[in-house]
Amino acid sequence: MTDAKAKLLDDIKIQGEVVRKLKSQKADKSQIDNEVAQLLSLKAKLTEIDGEAGDGAQGGKFTLKTPKGSRDYSPMQMALRNSVLDKIIKVFRRHGAETIDTPVFELKEVLTGKYGEDSKLIYDLKDQGGENLSLRYDLTVPFARYLAMNKISNIKRYHIAKVYRRDNPAMTKGRYREFYQCDFDIAGQYDPMLPEVECLRVVVEILNSLELGKFVVKVNHRALLDAIFEAAGVSSNMFRTICSSVDKLDKSPWEEVKKEMVNEKGLSDEAAEAIGNYVRQSGGTELLDRLAADEGLSKTKTGPGGIESLKLFLHYAELAGVSSYVSVDMSLARGLDYYTGLIYEAVLVGAEVGSVAGGGRYDGLVGMFDPKGKQVPCVGVSIGVERIFSVVEARAAKGSEKVRTTHVQVYVASAQKNLQDERLKLCALLWDAQINVEQSYKKSPKILAQLQHCEEQGVPVIVILGEDELKRGVVKVRDVATRAEEEVDRSALVDHLRQRLAALQNES
Amino acid sequence: MTDAKAKLLDDIKIQGEVVRKLKSQKADKSQIDNEVAQLLSLKAKLTEIDGEAGDGAQGGKFTLKTPKGSRDYSPMQMALRNSVLDKIIKVFRRHGAETIDTPVFELKEVLTGKYGEDSKLIYDLKDQGGENLSLRYDLTVPFARYLAMNKISNIKRYHIAKVYRRDNPAMTKGRYREFYQCDFDIAGQYDPMLPEVECLRVVVEILNSLELGKFVVKVNHRALLDAIFEAAGVSSNMFRTICSSVDKLDKSPWEEVKKEMVNEKGLSDEAAEAIGNYVRQSGGTELLDRLAADEGLSKTKTGPGGIESLKLFLHYAELAGVSSYVSVDMSLARGLDYYTGLIYEAVLVGAEVGSVAGGGRYDGLVGMFDPKGKQVPCVGVSIGVERIFSVVEARAAKGSEKVRTTHVQVYVASAQKNLQDERLKLCALLWDAQINVEQSYKKSPKILAQLQHCEEQGVPVIVILGEDELKRGVVKVRDVATRAEEEVDRSALVDHLRQRLAALQNES
Repeated sequence: MTDAKAKLLDDIKIQGEVVRKLKSQKADKSQIDNEVAQLLSLKAKLTEIDGEAGDGAQGGKFTLKTPKGSRDYSPMQMALRNSVLDKIIKVFRRHGAETIDTPVFELKEVLTGKYGEDSKLIYDLKDQGGENLSLRYDLTVPFARYLAMNKISNIKRYHIAKVYRRDNPAMTKGRYREFYQCDFDIAGQYDPMLPEVECLRVVVEILNSLELGKFVVKVNHRALLDAIFEAAGVSSNMFRTICSSVDKLDKSPWEEVKKEMVNEKGLSDEAAEAIGNYVRQSGGTELLDRLAADEGLSKTKTGPGGIESLKLFLHYAELAGVSSYVSVDMSLARGLDYYTGLIYEAVLVGAEVGSVAGGGRYDGLVGMFDPKGKQVPCVGVSIGVERIFSVVEARAAKGSEKVRTTHVQVYVASAQKNLQDERLKLCALLWDAQINVEQSYKKSPKILAQLQHCEEQGVPVIVILGEDELKRGVVKVRDVATRAEEEVDRSALVDHLRQRLAALQNES
Repeated sequence: MTDAKAKLLDDIKIQGEVVRKLKSQKADKSQIDNEVAQLLSLKAKLTEIDGEAGDGAQGGKFTLKTPKGSRDYSPMQMALRNSVLDKIIKVFRRHGAETIDTPVFELKEVLTGKYGEDSKLIYDLKDQGGENLSLRYDLTVPFARYLAMNKISNIKRYHIAKVYRRDNPAMTKGRYREFYQCDFDIAGQYDPMLPEVECLRVVVEILNSLELGKFVVKVNHRALLDAIFEAAGVSSNMFRTICSSVDKLDKSPWEEVKKEMVNEKGLSDEAAEAIGNYVRQSGGTELLDRLAADEGLSKTKTGPGGIESLKLFLHYAELAGVSSYVSVDMSLARGLDYYTGLIYEAVLVGAEVGSVAGGGRYDGLVGMFDPKGKQVPCVGVSIGVERIFSVVEARAAKGSEKVRTTHVQVYVASAQKNLQDERLKLCALLWDAQINVEQSYKKSPKILAQLQHCEEQGVPVIVILGEDELKRGVVKVRDVATRAEEEVDRSALVDHLRQRLAALQNES
């Protein structure tokens, strides 16, 4: 131990004695507070000396923080999050989805070989004797494992849960290592594009219900992308890597993407130009008609089928009343390898938050888990809830309206001291009537503090007990917003409050 | 590769060719199915040969399972769970609680030294370069860390989330390595027993709302337990270990517990007998009066204060209308070291599921995290939701009523082929009206299959499209329960359905 530390420990001991003595003498509070503050400042110095290494003493042994890339959610954040998730779940339920849950960890082998290069971002658990486990990286692979394991050949389910990626988090941009995913998927052998259009409709209803402003749902088809590459003369073993270059077009200009294709991936200049001419197009039915007439594409294996599929999709989107949100975007590629058909991505118009929903068809994933390789065709969308949360949080921070973190309807206050027993009795009466009620946990709280608490917390109604009112069998009922008060008979109180609360509900 | 395997791979290749050929010839479906079945059986044999080691081939590389002690939750289980959690959350909100969330993992040091011997059950993450992390073991320690880190000195919060313990799971008894906890805690410097009685009231309201049958909330006080040990002549360094022996009294008879105290822990026979005479008592106010008159206890440091606290608690419980549920049980000890005051435990009468809620006051935990050792007094209860889930699941399994896993209100069916476009248009109309609607994803589903689906899934209303009705501008609306049908004008359909659904809601 250093001399400085030994001296400090002595000082703390002495100062501690001073405080104890003053307390035992019931000395003046301000005097005690003063000495306590000195004691705490000495202890703080000790913490500094101990630093992060610490020596096993109480407190301050380590940096008080959440793990890198993770965070706590405060009551305010949870209130906003839950209001967003409630709206999303309402839409999922409107479309008949069930919900499931899977463990936060999976056998490591379940995740192996599903995420390509990103596999290095998977969190592994320590080998403590037993199985090798990893934290889930998304909800899609566990869903596919669930279907194969339980031999489920059709289900429409949503799943909202946290997933884990050892990314270098850009937390200021709302990217974390622990974050929510929110998936809706339809598994089963069905007729073309009917499940796809329901996913589209779900995305549109969700984004509209969240009032996020104008948005576009870009769509493309893997068969069309493959056809473009084939028509441009790309060899089929290059399709994936060229596809991932195309995927960058939403962030980089064409010239850069082309450079990557030609210089890094060795594509010929002509092939790159041919791809560029296709993928820079977007539109609706008229685009598809043009593509159907395109000689290069019509000779490819997958082109005509892909175009037909997109046409059918647009037809159904029209019937479902959501075609105005759709744009066929030939540059849309989606990073993940496992997509096999239609792919989507929704973006807010004029906002810089990136995509707020994305997904597509993946018919091969479940078969990777089935011992007999049995396929279960799937299509789904993932709602970008983290991005939506940050938009909603930013809006709440700017807005004037207070976000309530509790659901308290009535506060039971007392105007004089020692009415604790009476307050508790009244609370019990109201709780029995299923009213959301709160009171102070102090025996004799100040009336102003109680009123202030209600204004801060947005509690709409206060019931005030006073000795005089108790004798007369009445209470005062106060409207927090208008500060108007009226006397109500105790026997009529529950009915009175129910009517008030119903009226308030109708107003909002 | 073994010869047997090489042979099998050849067989699979040949059989695969057979299937492909038949398919390309559009052969008879039953013939194809037959050959496919043979192919699958060959592939299954391959899986057997590959065993768990595998060689990187597709599918069947590993046992398809969730990690030991974990499980998926099916739509049915989720529906039951959510109905239980909804009721619990309603009570938490009725008492003005906010909610927070914390990461699934914490810095390892946060958990170190909080769980005594049980620390060996903590899941650690692999060191992948960076911080040492562990999965959370409960929600109380993260809550204390949250309070200290954010310098929060008062909050009433609930937190429902999964926690992780590398226990040897008795899964048949409903014990898992990944399981939900559901905590309600009140932090802050308040007057004695007011937060405690609110926690009691919360437990009582929850257990009543879940209709789990008769229950008792046992209470005790750490100060009274310490006083008993002191009165019995136990030295204070033995209090904890003797306390953990007493804790076993709910499962083991007194004779066994006494044996442990005397033989294993070296207590004198007289001391053990003295403890036994105290801890086998339970009751209400009359018990407390007897204890207050007890000469041995009245001489102890903490006895009189503990008895006074329990008396005040019973007084408040009476005012809050819940004293009939309370029993002072002097054998109640609660395993965790960090309790400092009142402790509770709720048990169902006549059921063998163990405690369904438990908790107590822990005034020292937050100070362990605060750099200056600043204390934040806390009291809380944890609802044993996993045990409650198993009770509710068992009841649902026995019961005759079907648990619905979706919220579909109306199914749009078609009586003839090729009405897909019309069905989709009608669905869109109803979705626009915020009605929960589902249809088949097949272009021409059989009418019987559609009706059967609704009966199985508990969908209450079907709208049936037919060519004749389409011409006349009407649809058939069918009540699934009674099978009664009526014709409704399409222009009046939304209003008609809203009225029907409202009526159904009122019935249930």
